[in-house]
Amino acid sequence: MIDQLHKTLETYYPEMVELRRTLHQHPELSFEEEQTPAMIADYLEKLGVEVKRNVGGRGVVGYIRGAKPGKTVALRADFDALPIQEETGLPFASKTPGVMHACGHDGHTATLLVVAKVLMENQQNLEGTVVLIHQFAEELAPGGAIAMISDGCLEGVDAIFGTHLWSTMPLGEIGYRRDAIMAAADRFEIDFKGRGGHGASPHETVDAIAVGTSVVQNLQHIVSRNVDPLKSAVLSVGSFHAGGAFNVIADSAKIVGTVRTFETDVQDMMIERMEQVTKGVSDAMGATYDFLYKKGYPAVINDPFETDRFVGTATKLQGEDLVKEMAPVMGGEDFAYYLQHVPGTFFFTGAGNVEKGIVYPHHHPKFDFDESAMLVAAKLLLSVALDFLSDKNSSLLKTQSKEADATS
Amino acid sequence: MIDQLHKTLETYYPEMVELRRTLHQHPELSFEEEQTPAMIADYLEKLGVEVKRNVGGRGVVGYIRGAKPGKTVALRADFDALPIQEETGLPFASKTPGVMHACGHDGHTATLLVVAKVLMENQQNLEGTVVLIHQFAEELAPGGAIAMISDGCLEGVDAIFGTHLWSTMPLGEIGYRRDAIMAAADRFEIDFKGRGGHGASPHETVDAIAVGTSVVQNLQHIVSRNVDPLKSAVLSVGSFHAGGAFNVIADSAKIVGTVRTFETDVQDMMIERMEQVTKGVSDAMGATYDFLYKKGYPAVINDPFETDRFVGTATKLQGEDLVKEMAPVMGGEDFAYYLQHVPGTFFFTGAGNVEKGIVYPHHHPKFDFDESAMLVAAKLLLSVALDFLSDKNSSLLKTQSKEADATS
Amino acid sequence: MIDQLHKTLETYYPEMVELRRTLHQHPELSFEEEQTPAMIADYLEKLGVEVKRNVGGRGVVGYIRGAKPGKTVALRADFDALPIQEETGLPFASKTPGVMHACGHDGHTATLLVVAKVLMENQQNLEGTVVLIHQFAEELAPGGAIAMISDGCLEGVDAIFGTHLWSTMPLGEIGYRRDAIMAAADRFEIDFKGRGGHGASPHETVDAIAVGTSVVQNLQHIVSRNVDPLKSAVLSVGSFHAGGAFNVIADSAKIVGTVRTFETDVQDMMIERMEQVTKGVSDAMGATYDFLYKKGYPAVINDPFETDRFVGTATKLQGEDLVKEMAPVMGGEDFAYYLQHVPGTFFFTGAGNVEKGIVYPHHHPKFDFDESAMLVAAKLLLSVALDFLSDKNSSLLKTQSKEADATS
Amino acid sequence: MIDQLHKTLETYYPEMVELRRTLHQHPELSFEEEQTPAMIADYLEKLGVEVKRNVGGRGVVGYIRGAKPGKTVALRADFDALPIQEETGLPFASKTPGVMHACGHDGHTATLLVVAKVLMENQQNLEGTVVLIHQFAEELAPGGAIAMISDGCLEGVDAIFGTHLWSTMPLGEIGYRRDAIMAAADRFEIDFKGRGGHGASPHETVDAIAVGTSVVQNLQHIVSRNVDPLKSAVLSVGSFHAGGAFNVIADSAKIVGTVRTFETDVQDMMIERMEQVTKGVSDAMGATYDFLYKKGYPAVINDPFETDRFVGTATKLQGEDLVKEMAPVMGGEDFAYYLQHVPGTFFFTGAGNVEKGIVYPHHHPKFDFDESAMLVAAKLLLSVALDFLSDKNSSLLKTQSKEADATS
Repeated sequence: MIDQLHKTLETYYPEMVELRRTLHQHPELSFEEEQTPAMIADYLEKLGVEVKRNVGGRGVVGYIRGAKPGKTVALRADFDALPIQEETGLPFASKTPGVMHACGHDGHTATLLVVAKVLMENQQNLEGTVVLIHQFAEELAPGGAIAMISDGCLEGVDAIFGTHLWSTMPLGEIGYRRDAIMAAADRFEIDFKGRGGHGASPHETVDAIAVGTSVVQNLQHIVSRNVDPLKSAVLSVGSFHAGGAFNVIADSAKIVGTVRTFETDVQDMMIERMEQVTKGVSDAMGATYDFLYKKGYPAVINDPFETDRFVGTATKLQGEDLVKEMAPVMGGEDFAYYLQHVPGTFFFTGAGNVEKGIVYPHHHPKFDFDESAMLVAAKLLLSVALDFLSDKNSSLLKTQSKEADATS
Repeated sequence: MIDQLHKTLETYYPEMVELRRTLHQHPELSFEEEQTPAMIADYLEKLGVEVKRNVGGRGVVGYIRGAKPGKTVALRADFDALPIQEETGLPFASKTPGVMHACGHDGHTATLLVVAKVLMENQQNLEGTVVLIHQFAEELAPGGAIAMISDGCLEGVDAIFGTHLWSTMPLGEIGYRRDAIMAAADRFEIDFKGRGGHGASPHETVDAIAVGTSVVQNLQHIVSRNVDPLKSAVLSVGSFHAGGAFNVIADSAKIVGTVRTFETDVQDMMIERMEQVTKGVSDAMGATYDFLYKKGYPAVINDPFETDRFVGTATKLQGEDLVKEMAPVMGGEDFAYYLQHVPGTFFFTGAGNVEKGIVYPHHHPKFDFDESAMLVAAKLLLSVALDFLSDKNSSLLKTQSKEADATS
Repeated sequence: MIDQLHKTLETYYPEMVELRRTLHQHPELSFEEEQTPAMIADYLEKLGVEVKRNVGGRGVVGYIRGAKPGKTVALRADFDALPIQEETGLPFASKTPGVMHACGHDGHTATLLVVAKVLMENQQNLEGTVVLIHQFAEELAPGGAIAMISDGCLEGVDAIFGTHLWSTMPLGEIGYRRDAIMAAADRFEIDFKGRGGHGASPHETVDAIAVGTSVVQNLQHIVSRNVDPLKSAVLSVGSFHAGGAFNVIADSAKIVGTVRTFETDVQDMMIERMEQVTKGVSDAMGATYDFLYKKGYPAVINDPFETDRFVGTATKLQGEDLVKEMAPVMGGEDFAYYLQHVPGTFFFTGAGNVEKGIVYPHHHPKFDFDESAMLVAAKLLLSVALDFLSDKNSSLLKTQSKEADATS
Repeated sequence: MIDQLHKTLETYYPEMVELRRTLHQHPELSFEEEQTPAMIADYLEKLGVEVKRNVGGRGVVGYIRGAKPGKTVALRADFDALPIQEETGLPFASKTPGVMHACGHDGHTATLLVVAKVLMENQQNLEGTVVLIHQFAEELAPGGAIAMISDGCLEGVDAIFGTHLWSTMPLGEIGYRRDAIMAAADRFEIDFKGRGGHGASPHETVDAIAVGTSVVQNLQHIVSRNVDPLKSAVLSVGSFHAGGAFNVIADSAKIVGTVRTFETDVQDMMIERMEQVTKGVSDAMGATYDFLYKKGYPAVINDPFETDRFVGTATKLQGEDLVKEMAPVMGGEDFAYYLQHVPGTFFFTGAGNVEKGIVYPHHHPKFDFDESAMLVAAKLLLSVALDFLSDKNSSLLKTQSKEADATS
């Protein structure tokens, strides 16, 4: 049956491209999406899909209930855009100044809509249910996932799959990872308050630049001294701003930066140590501080068992040479929240194409992706969903999957 | 005779005040003075003083040649204003938006003009010559002194005296110092160039904030490790700016600061060591840098012998309780250049008055000074000039003055 | 057949214990082994094994050639001891003051000798050849492996297996890892030369403690800024010694430490960056330095394919619950060199036993191991060797093993 | 009269040399002096001087009461030696192994004994009293001065004078200073306690070397940021010791150093800031510490009025070219305590002689001084004592001396 469905998908590829281009011309910022979810819901309803609008605010959820009973699998696509002025020069470039689909969410959405069309056409043969999660606001914490989950989008769902079209991976390649595939990406700000004064009279001041630079130096110790060398963590200070006049000692300094981790215990340790360093060094110099740490999305932790299932599915489709275990990506994704509730896997679908000049990274004003990657993604999502539904044992096994993986 | 001249000065005090207030209403920025030097030159010429205009550009030099032969002494007053919006609310406040006599140069000028008037009236009794140096552009390096000297204003001059009305010293007090009374005040800028990148991938970058903060920390070693503990030096980093986005590693960082020293060898060592530290630490981290060091005015080094003369003069006038040896001032003054050519002394004339609310520091938008301090300054300048001219031995002794001072 | 051989091994367990205890009483330091290799060679020759003595200096290699043709597999055991004064109080404690088998090499040797005995008894059924590599000097770089390899001990060998009895892992557990199982462990020394002087006159000195402490601080940047966050590296300064009298500025300082890495490119980067930091900071402060970096053993990189074979073998023997993928060990092992020439795997055999008080770590004066772990190790080595010899395809596949692993 | 006494001193110069050489051969360590005070007391008693032995422990005080009434002046000489093995090769070198008069105290004592002899011979002409303070234990804090003062050696004393023979100043030169001539010299020790561990597992440790090096770096901020640039302070870490094995993270680190200051408020600030830095940085890294600060002798603060008297005396004797205001010496002297009770001055008597090879600094195994410097010192001490006694007004003026100095 799968082969037949893939053929159908190929037939609908021109529609997929058209859908994508329409979306691309009308991007909407995170938490400001209006036309996009309406268009999605309208499209799905026209297919006959049972649709919930305004899920968690601006999300759309579709339910394709198979004629035969069975398990429930969710597929997710995000649909928000970025505050970037497009510079691609494409004929279907964004019509909204300063807003651009520079991360491929237009492609994710078009892919899932066409997958829905094919599934609806085969509703009679479907065992179980496919839930279509069209998510708003992936680009901006706290993101849309957490609200859609609160609003019930995962109710009854046994597993979830999702993908990201990836312009820095060649078209055809598929990237997977058994556990952490994307890092937790957090943000911190530290404001130091000293006591300003004349540059010639340091003894009457508490030099905020002396404090801030010492803290930056000592923060470097955390990764090198406090993180298990076999684990990963990054602490980068991205900005340091203090002072104005050359001959005035600054009374305050502000540093802002990011922390990336994969494990919660490492993240917790980082936060604790950072505040300890900030407090200790500030105390040492008689300064005070405000320490603000804002957690971003948690790490995306794939389920090993469902990942192995996906690898099997993908290998059949693309051949084993193109399905590659990849290094974790240090960025953040709120797909992480779904995986905290149900097993599943998030994978990367290669969408770069050097020959076509599709080489720009995500969030770049010239970002684009090879549209035929949507067809690859559609086949993979469709296949893995059906493979999951047709596997009678998976839900029983899933709680044992971690242990099983270790010795497989 | 001195007593009689002081009485005359008192008689002319209202004119001094009027002159000052007129100047105060029409401030002109450094290197942009036009009306001020014209007004000074006109006033002096009306007195009958022999005047040179445009000395060194915008300076005015007057020559009062006594009827009797003798030595030559110079008195100096500066006349430029500052780019500050006045907030005093005084009836004679600046009429030029954004420009203000916030450092008392209007008072210096009014004082010297009235001293000139009294001296002209006593030209018959004068032994030797008094040179009036009305200097432009003291507030902005390279300053006017250096140009006026090049243009000959010190030709034939045997000694020079000058004062600063000082609002943070109570009216009546006089501050002197035998050697260095004001520090050299320099400015430096260091631009670091690393290689930017994503905050999650520090290994692909050269983190300019890591470089800059390490340099700031290591610069602190210079004062504590390389300066003779019995000498003075200050190195303050006044500003540190680097980076923008929290999750992007900065490709550049800029620090700006000031160095204060009293001795040329200490200044030279500071510059050499600063560049050594900047280069070493930048090398250590694979960054490059631009190091810019801009010397300000050199230290004002008073002549001990002429200072002792002044102290004697001042003690007779104010009584020994009010004539105080003061700690050096860490600011800069281009009176320094005159003292590199001829002996003399620069002193401070107390002009603060808490009861009248005259408490704001120099360069403050509410800065003012007690106008009666001008009378004190006028008496001191007149007296020390005449004391100098009447001392037949001083010029012979002056080269031995340093040794003499040590055992006096 | 395997089951029968395991039974035989059990029968010989008392001899294994006796051999181990004899060795334990007569420990010999690395590169000073004389009696130990002689005893090993004598034992093997008595079994009828073809023996080469003095391989690479002090090594012993035995050849058990099966009656049937086939592949060649090597098993390795090291036999040197440590300069530690034993404090176990065991009846068979070391008789040599200050020298102790505190790392279990006595156990490794006894295990392999008895494996040899069992194999010799089954020479008729053996397909292919088993090479017994009894290695000297594992504890002291450059180690014995490199010399034994130069001397031909791997000639004709298709694969190699080895184990470490591990007192911090419970008896029964087996630890494996598909790729890097032990880190490269290097040593560095940096001597700083400043210029000493009186503590009250820092400006006449180059303070070696100021230099050394700044270098230590800046070295911390390397791991946190220059190592790929997804890779592992450790840089620890273990000792810092400088100065004597409290009031004398030190003219020199010495720091000594260790670097641990898994990849050659990370190791190379660390060395380059360390010298760059040392040079830069020394230059910054006018000091000179000697930088000495001594590479220890490289990382032990297991072959994924042979590791999977071993996991299969071990799971059959111990059950899947006890065969665990482990985190890499940060210590060094010159087994690394064998794996640079032939595929194979190095694994850990749990030998701790809390109930018996066997809890001390390796290199501790009270170190011991549960002797029954030798029987586990013997069975595993014997089994994996025979599994390797009986697999007709392995040698063809081995070059593809890495790719295969990625998708298996 | 003075001239006659100076002639007499010259006559006794050979005896002075003999006394010095005898003392030099029999040096005694601080707080262990027995023969030296006995010899001094015997000598003085033989002269007829009224002697108190065991003053404050081991001190000797002599009273030369003039025939005429008057004021009381004290002269002080110290007599302890140092734990240094002499390497001068002099015929009168130390006979006690490991103990040496390497600081000239033998000369101080011989000088004062002969001064006493001359004064006794002129007791009839003497107005007032001369107190001879022969002090033990100057080299070792808490020193002998404090105990001798407690024991009454300053009772009735109106002023005190003392000198140090100084080998790094040429013979003939005299160094004086109106206020602080020698710094307070303190000692500190900081022990850091972290948590040791394996060099490859920093995350399980608190790295004491990381803590200690960060503290050393941050301590450098105190002098550069917290000390008034117009005041002097030195903080030098003289030793840093931590760790042993290269691959073990140190659990503790110890730094020892010295602080030099002239003012009590600067000293207090230094102590407070040092502990603040130590605590803050230790807290920042999770370490603990012991902070020990041991004050040495306070700064030697000369009385300006008595210094001016001395300068007058000295100038008459040596000529003004040889009497020089000197930079403060950063070492410590417990003469400081006498000056906390009575006015007076401490000066330096040049005793170096390059032509004779007398060039080694104090505390050097080859230290020596030109013995004729003793005659200079004797004349100066005798003269200034008599000048003081003959000045009827000095004691009334002394409390005003500081103010007077400022305007003199």
